Amino acid sequence: MTDPQGFECYLRDRRTAIDSALNTGLPTPPACPPLIADAMRYSLLAGGKRLRPILTLAAAEAVTERDRPARIDPVDTGSTAAMPAACAVELIHTYSLIHDDLPAMDDDAVRRGRPTAHVVYGDAVAILAGDALLTHAFGVLARPESTETPARQARRLRAMARLADAAGAAGMVGGQILDIGATDDRRAGRAGPDIGHAALRDIHERKTGALIGAAAAMGAILAGGDEETLAAVDAYSTQLGLAFQIVDDILDVEGTETTLGKTVGKDAVAGKPTYPALHGLTRSRALAAEAAAAAADALAGAKLGGRLSEITDWVISRRH
Amino acid sequence: MTDPQGFECYLRDRRTAIDSALNTGLPTPPACPPLIADAMRYSLLAGGKRLRPILTLAAAEAVTERDRPARIDPVDTGSTAAMPAACAVELIHTYSLIHDDLPAMDDDAVRRGRPTAHVVYGDAVAILAGDALLTHAFGVLARPESTETPARQARRLRAMARLADAAGAAGMVGGQILDIGATDDRRAGRAGPDIGHAALRDIHERKTGALIGAAAAMGAILAGGDEETLAAVDAYSTQLGLAFQIVDDILDVEGTETTLGKTVGKDAVAGKPTYPALHGLTRSRALAAEAAAAAADALAGAKLGGRLSEITDWVISRRH
Repeated sequence: MTDPQGFECYLRDRRTAIDSALNTGLPTPPACPPLIADAMRYSLLAGGKRLRPILTLAAAEAVTERDRPARIDPVDTGSTAAMPAACAVELIHTYSLIHDDLPAMDDDAVRRGRPTAHVVYGDAVAILAGDALLTHAFGVLARPESTETPARQARRLRAMARLADAAGAAGMVGGQILDIGATDDRRAGRAGPDIGHAALRDIHERKTGALIGAAAAMGAILAGGDEETLAAVDAYSTQLGLAFQIVDDILDVEGTETTLGKTVGKDAVAGKPTYPALHGLTRSRALAAEAAAAAADALAGAKLGGRLSEITDWVISRRH
Repeated sequence: MTDPQGFECYLRDRRTAIDSALNTGLPTPPACPPLIADAMRYSLLAGGKRLRPILTLAAAEAVTERDRPARIDPVDTGSTAAMPAACAVELIHTYSLIHDDLPAMDDDAVRRGRPTAHVVYGDAVAILAGDALLTHAFGVLARPESTETPARQARRLRAMARLADAAGAAGMVGGQILDIGATDDRRAGRAGPDIGHAALRDIHERKTGALIGAAAAMGAILAGGDEETLAAVDAYSTQLGLAFQIVDDILDVEGTETTLGKTVGKDAVAGKPTYPALHGLTRSRALAAEAAAAAADALAGAKLGGRLSEITDWVISRRH
């Protein structure tokens, strides 16, 4: 982290751009009923770190900077081409939070420092708001662009396929299914307190890692990265996702509701499998650091610079 | 309906092809957890009329037959190019049924003649199965094709954008929001028994009409129909969707649980706005016939033949 102040500015700048793009693209009345527009905005524009969409933009920028260092076209920077994908990944992340927080699932009342969607709007509207956000994610990615080369169309389709794989039954939704199952098993005494490292990692790779991986991959795809670059970005984001989840688990033990903006200590109460429960806090911190180092190696191997390594530092050192 | 027997064969043939494509494309273990694979299959492969995907194929075939009557290429018939879109629309229809049937929504225990997904798997898994089906719909549409012209890529993107619009906040999800709101208002005595023809039609156009419209439109788009043709197909499907909904409302009054495969008389009990409640049965039947006639006019104006007019007859005369 050579220039933390510069990185803070970068994050602020990209967050502003992402929030603006998200807000502009959302359906509004009279095209849609006011209630669903409100519910979508309530959860989507509630703040949030915007880690995933920033990762998409940063990956696109890193590939663009490396492959076209002299490019100065202000319109078609990697970041511009990747913005719809950045929005799509945040829309999907937000929908997953709404559905995960439902009473039928994790039953969480606080998220991003505010009452969860179902607390405010009721379960039915919360389910539908999640459905609408998920649908909108693919709508944003598919939206026709006025001037587009066949190569870019092909990249958009590839990015969408990657996003669908990451968000669906084999990825995020599959992870949530496994998480619910593991928690139920523990509650019912069908499994011991230790679900095993491999099983824990499988849950996290699907539930959190897959979408983080797709976020980075879409940026690299849309910036026209070659197969070798895409593989390096995947290696980077796999480790980043792992580090993210370990830190998330640590924060659930150490954090406070005020800094996290969500209910804390819930994992332990719910009998959820976590890294600290399985490995203890000290070993969990070491595992997060190992993942961060592996992420850095992946970037170095592909000569990818930009903000990607600072994002790893951010993920490792975050307090919320 | 000149050849009803031929049409029955056509329906059977297309249903077989659609079910096969749906089944082949679904995620399977070990790529995804067995439970989510089971839950997705349970609802998706439970039978069903397959009206929407058949409409997609029939629209593609009608445009292809009219524009390229001499075409004999067995690989790139309109139907083949449109199959991913046909699957996508059925995946979205099925997810919407699962979510609508949830206790938090319409609370239905029977669908397609079987216990609903949440009755079998619980609310959490049912919500997630719906999410996975919705996500998979866009994955199927985005899936890379080995040999594809830029023109076809552009059509795929356009079809996806249309599907997302139809399924999202401005379409199907928006319709469900309005439906829930109208039902709540009636139950709470905030609205009279008559919600008004325009409001009822708005609900139906969004909740049912939008997806039926997208089903037909995607077929026409993927077959390379020009703007005039797409407008005609939209005019046709708007009337078809209207006829479908009126007949649906009539069947809820007249049908039996055995023929319908779902709980009947629920609309009246739930205080749901329906055509028979608003117009009576006789006038409702006349309205359905009017819509069917308007659908036929739209087809004739664009010289579109094929199976589309038989689909209208099917929708009007169906008993379930």
